[in-house]
Amino acid sequence: MSETVADTESLMEQESRLSESPSAVPGTVRPGGRTAKVRRAVLDATEDALAASGFHTLNMDQIAASAGVGKTTVYRRWGSPVGLVTDLLHDMAEQSLPAADTGSLAGDLRANAALVHRTLTDPRMGAVFRAVIAAAACDEECATALRGFYRTRLEEWAPVVTRAAARGEVPAGTDALELLRAVSAPLYYRFAVSREDLHETHAERSVQAALAAAAAGAFVASPAPGAD
Amino acid sequence: MSETVADTESLMEQESRLSESPSAVPGTVRPGGRTAKVRRAVLDATEDALAASGFHTLNMDQIAASAGVGKTTVYRRWGSPVGLVTDLLHDMAEQSLPAADTGSLAGDLRANAALVHRTLTDPRMGAVFRAVIAAAACDEECATALRGFYRTRLEEWAPVVTRAAARGEVPAGTDALELLRAVSAPLYYRFAVSREDLHETHAERSVQAALAAAAAGAFVASPAPGAD
Repeated sequence: MSETVADTESLMEQESRLSESPSAVPGTVRPGGRTAKVRRAVLDATEDALAASGFHTLNMDQIAASAGVGKTTVYRRWGSPVGLVTDLLHDMAEQSLPAADTGSLAGDLRANAALVHRTLTDPRMGAVFRAVIAAAACDEECATALRGFYRTRLEEWAPVVTRAAARGEVPAGTDALELLRAVSAPLYYRFAVSREDLHETHAERSVQAALAAAAAGAFVASPAPGAD
Repeated sequence: MSETVADTESLMEQESRLSESPSAVPGTVRPGGRTAKVRRAVLDATEDALAASGFHTLNMDQIAASAGVGKTTVYRRWGSPVGLVTDLLHDMAEQSLPAADTGSLAGDLRANAALVHRTLTDPRMGAVFRAVIAAAACDEECATALRGFYRTRLEEWAPVVTRAAARGEVPAGTDALELLRAVSAPLYYRFAVSREDLHETHAERSVQAALAAAAAGAFVASPAPGAD
């Protein structure tokens, strides 16, 4: 769990370091030319704006001003607020870090649930996720990018289930992505749908429920003849 | 399952009957005076508009025109698009029908999952739910109304779990709402968050996973000392 918490923090630090050093001495920022730095500045400004006031007030001119980048560049490269959100989602997918490997399925799923819980209850990242979910509800291009983001996350964590199957912790043929979705779903349901409070106890319950369901074979690829 | 499917249809028919008979002969529409009929017409027009183009283009003047109601009435009574959405959510909660009672927990949860699946994959109601979820992401009043809607739905279905506990189908102390949330959550996760396709097999898997988790005690009110 602590490894994953550290991952979240390092991800946030990394992002804020990049955004706070637009004029840093060469060599003190991540490798990448002018284009990469412009993209970083624009995506950080987009994330700031989404966190502060959501998708529907996203304004290209304000993003350009906040990022310290010419308007022409922002319009030419991203085209619209939808273009900014989809590129941010691609970037979030690219930046996501490897899955936990604690030695047990329970430990790995706890790390996953803790990461989801921390992200959604973090004031900044919670607001960003709410904004991208809302953007996806209103725009199909954003929806496709959001689907891609979760697909990348799920695939990154899939080895957790493969390793568990090799250790005999889940039945053969368990669908890794379905098991991982089952861990996240109750947390996102409260966060984005029923709009109820989200606590650590919900993350733990979600893990316990997913482990019990997995042990019972509920996530085996074809649960019943003719299904799926 | 068929009972619940019929419930969904009768709910939709009821709504369309009311909206299609603004000038029907007294006695052929639901009891209620002028005020109730105006509310019905305005909420039907609101639902139409949300289904057609979402929350952010909701326009008070257009709602008044579609409903055949004076603009002044709509502005005075609902005030804003947020007022329309929150009243629609209250209405949806009021109109929701009793839970299934098939004689087994598996049967009742299947009816519940089938209802959620049918609602979210129905082109009109799916679009309405996407719109109210997006509205709730952007506005706290809408979020409170959405939370109230799901609370009402969950509480209506809670007796399903109480009866199952009395029949010895789940461990004593099982938290009814948590078990019901576990059935809905994977379906809503695909629908509103990861934006993946939603099929009947997902509804069945969600029921199997929730049953296995419930049997293992994952939804017993206090899963660990000090929790919740």
